Amino acid sequence: MPLTLDDVRELDRQDPLATFRSRFTLPQGTIYLDGNSLGAQPSAAVAAVDGLMSQWRDSLIQGWNQGWFDAPERLGDRLAPLLGAGPGEVLVTDTITHNIFKLLGYITEGQRGTEGQRGTEGQSRARPVILSEGGNFPTDGYIAQGFCRFGGFEHRVVPEGEALDAYLDERVAAVVLSHVHYRTGRLRDMAAITRQVHASGGEVVWDLAHSAGALQVNLAACGVRYAVGCTYKYLNGGPGAPAFLYVRRDCQDRAWQPLSGWLGHASPFAFEVDYAPAPGISRFRTGTHSPLAFAALEASLALWQEVDLAQLRRKSQRLIELFRESLGDCLAEHSIADITPDEAQRGSQVGLVEREHGYAIVQALIERGVIGDYREPGLMRFGFAPLYLSHEDVWQAAQHLREVLSEGEYLAPCFQQRGAVT
Amino acid sequence: MPLTLDDVRELDRQDPLATFRSRFTLPQGTIYLDGNSLGAQPSAAVAAVDGLMSQWRDSLIQGWNQGWFDAPERLGDRLAPLLGAGPGEVLVTDTITHNIFKLLGYITEGQRGTEGQRGTEGQSRARPVILSEGGNFPTDGYIAQGFCRFGGFEHRVVPEGEALDAYLDERVAAVVLSHVHYRTGRLRDMAAITRQVHASGGEVVWDLAHSAGALQVNLAACGVRYAVGCTYKYLNGGPGAPAFLYVRRDCQDRAWQPLSGWLGHASPFAFEVDYAPAPGISRFRTGTHSPLAFAALEASLALWQEVDLAQLRRKSQRLIELFRESLGDCLAEHSIADITPDEAQRGSQVGLVEREHGYAIVQALIERGVIGDYREPGLMRFGFAPLYLSHEDVWQAAQHLREVLSEGEYLAPCFQQRGAVT
Repeated sequence: MPLTLDDVRELDRQDPLATFRSRFTLPQGTIYLDGNSLGAQPSAAVAAVDGLMSQWRDSLIQGWNQGWFDAPERLGDRLAPLLGAGPGEVLVTDTITHNIFKLLGYITEGQRGTEGQRGTEGQSRARPVILSEGGNFPTDGYIAQGFCRFGGFEHRVVPEGEALDAYLDERVAAVVLSHVHYRTGRLRDMAAITRQVHASGGEVVWDLAHSAGALQVNLAACGVRYAVGCTYKYLNGGPGAPAFLYVRRDCQDRAWQPLSGWLGHASPFAFEVDYAPAPGISRFRTGTHSPLAFAALEASLALWQEVDLAQLRRKSQRLIELFRESLGDCLAEHSIADITPDEAQRGSQVGLVEREHGYAIVQALIERGVIGDYREPGLMRFGFAPLYLSHEDVWQAAQHLREVLSEGEYLAPCFQQRGAVT
Repeated sequence: MPLTLDDVRELDRQDPLATFRSRFTLPQGTIYLDGNSLGAQPSAAVAAVDGLMSQWRDSLIQGWNQGWFDAPERLGDRLAPLLGAGPGEVLVTDTITHNIFKLLGYITEGQRGTEGQRGTEGQSRARPVILSEGGNFPTDGYIAQGFCRFGGFEHRVVPEGEALDAYLDERVAAVVLSHVHYRTGRLRDMAAITRQVHASGGEVVWDLAHSAGALQVNLAACGVRYAVGCTYKYLNGGPGAPAFLYVRRDCQDRAWQPLSGWLGHASPFAFEVDYAPAPGISRFRTGTHSPLAFAALEASLALWQEVDLAQLRRKSQRLIELFRESLGDCLAEHSIADITPDEAQRGSQVGLVEREHGYAIVQALIERGVIGDYREPGLMRFGFAPLYLSHEDVWQAAQHLREVLSEGEYLAPCFQQRGAVT
């Protein structure tokens, strides 16, 4: 029997994470199911950004001695517990795209070193192949292609969702894989795949964009050596907030990374002529970062220190089940496919596919204040950020979707025209 | 005869740029001669950043359709007139370090194309050498080294200040040069050097970090094809504000750039498997930028639209002369070398060298509220940002320096210990 409004309000009263909602500011009348695209604003971020602006005004250049300079390492250390990583293993810097490039360069140079090769042109590589997954978030594949084209590697694509078995061999240097797939929401078995790739002599770079802050990531326990991720989705760092990378401590001093800038130098203020990589995770820094962008993220990460990740995962899954239960038969009635994987194999999102009307349905929902997003082709994507979504929100969102479908609202001409982004 | 306080106040009354001072907020009691390291805060930046925070809170993901997405191109177009560039030729993105890497990759792939070569490993390049200048700002050399190491190029260094004649030959693919040198303040002859490098069949990437916003840069008139620069110095975009790159319009569609991310794709929201570079300057985008960091810069660039760059240059040079005149004989008396070039060959800074006590002298000045900076070895660096410095500021700064020297203030133990940054 479907839950009533009273039922879901009771779930909210029992929710151990319910108090986090008051730490975010959300617009009135909005049910926000797009926290997997851009997270909501932690109220504390406003004061943090104001504070940074005052610091720029009053301290001017001295601000760099007052916490700006080491923000990439400091925020990395705050992020580490959310990823199952240790201090000195995570660096907040640049974007996922840049960070994949750095790690692929670092890994492949390290492989040359250990295999007794030299980095000069004209010598073939023992491991000339970079693998990535088809249907993965495009930037991961695009930057792998750029890396291969520039570095003389061969880029191969594993069809979406397939096992790696047929593609892993002694020629594969590295694999770029998403932990949770951005379209399907499918959660990969990080431990098993990491073992498999390492057994083949290759390395895997995990993209945590859709798992960091959505579930408990256990990098150390899964034997992961390299990962990247972003902070503007579930981690609520703000639009375009800096990304992060993870390099396990025992893998940190093996090689250069190709984007060797002054802030990754062992002695950046000695102004030496030759680059010498900093020891540890700092060598993955490149240029001068934006303390302003870091301030908003730091406020959010302070809040995250209080979150019990096991509770987070339970609530995420309960919200997803509640959403699907509350939709009842309406998906089948409108020939909408629910591609959401089973609980053990999913992240924190629901994917519904309707090729003809998917875009219009999402627009009609937005008109009602229910914000999801649309991804070509045909995918309506709904993210469930457990820190600021209530059970009632999710129940109400399902009622809205039922009404949009049953009343044919999405057929109105105003919902047909494609916008640029969202 | 040295100018009196009344004299310099009269200069301020006649200064056509004097009103810009009220558009910046500077801390009380500070004379800021470090605008060449981090520019002061335009008052309008505070409202702009507040507005962006409100937009994140209220518009959430829709913010990307409300001006965030095309900020790199929009701000590039606002910057263009300050550089002597046209619309669609400047992109605000990433850092100088990243942008040099992109341009070197783009240039060298373009050369392979035109010279009938393929980008596969094992084939030697006709132009395997990247040149940069010794003593240039370190990150320019470091990233050139990383580029060469990863891409199989040879990195060669032209000794600081030397002409390129002996180093340019048919093996040189590209030269990375600063327009104004960060230590000496020396201004290179952009037109002549650009002609010389092009005549050799190579390309030059100009670094405008110390000239953009300090003087009138004439990229088109000088025949420049590629340039990079930052916006957090004279352009007052805020700490770590995004950098820019310039690619002349007729040179824009020649090749891939190696940091090929989703926002540089021809159709970023089609989520295609294969990378296809966007036409025009947008292909130099990589990952997702921070609209927060762009908001502060956009406020500053609005102010810059009102600036007469010829007036700016005249005031910059007048301030430098005033500073040096007001110091009188005190430099010689304390064996301090003034390495500032003559007017035609300098940017907007004064460099004084005192190897033993330079650091302590800068600290003693900071204690008096006169902020300059120190760069190893021995360099006291004073930047003159004409938009917010008055003639009286500069005259007072010179009096402070005279007193610090004549009274031996810098010998106090508190000024001897080296800090981390500044």
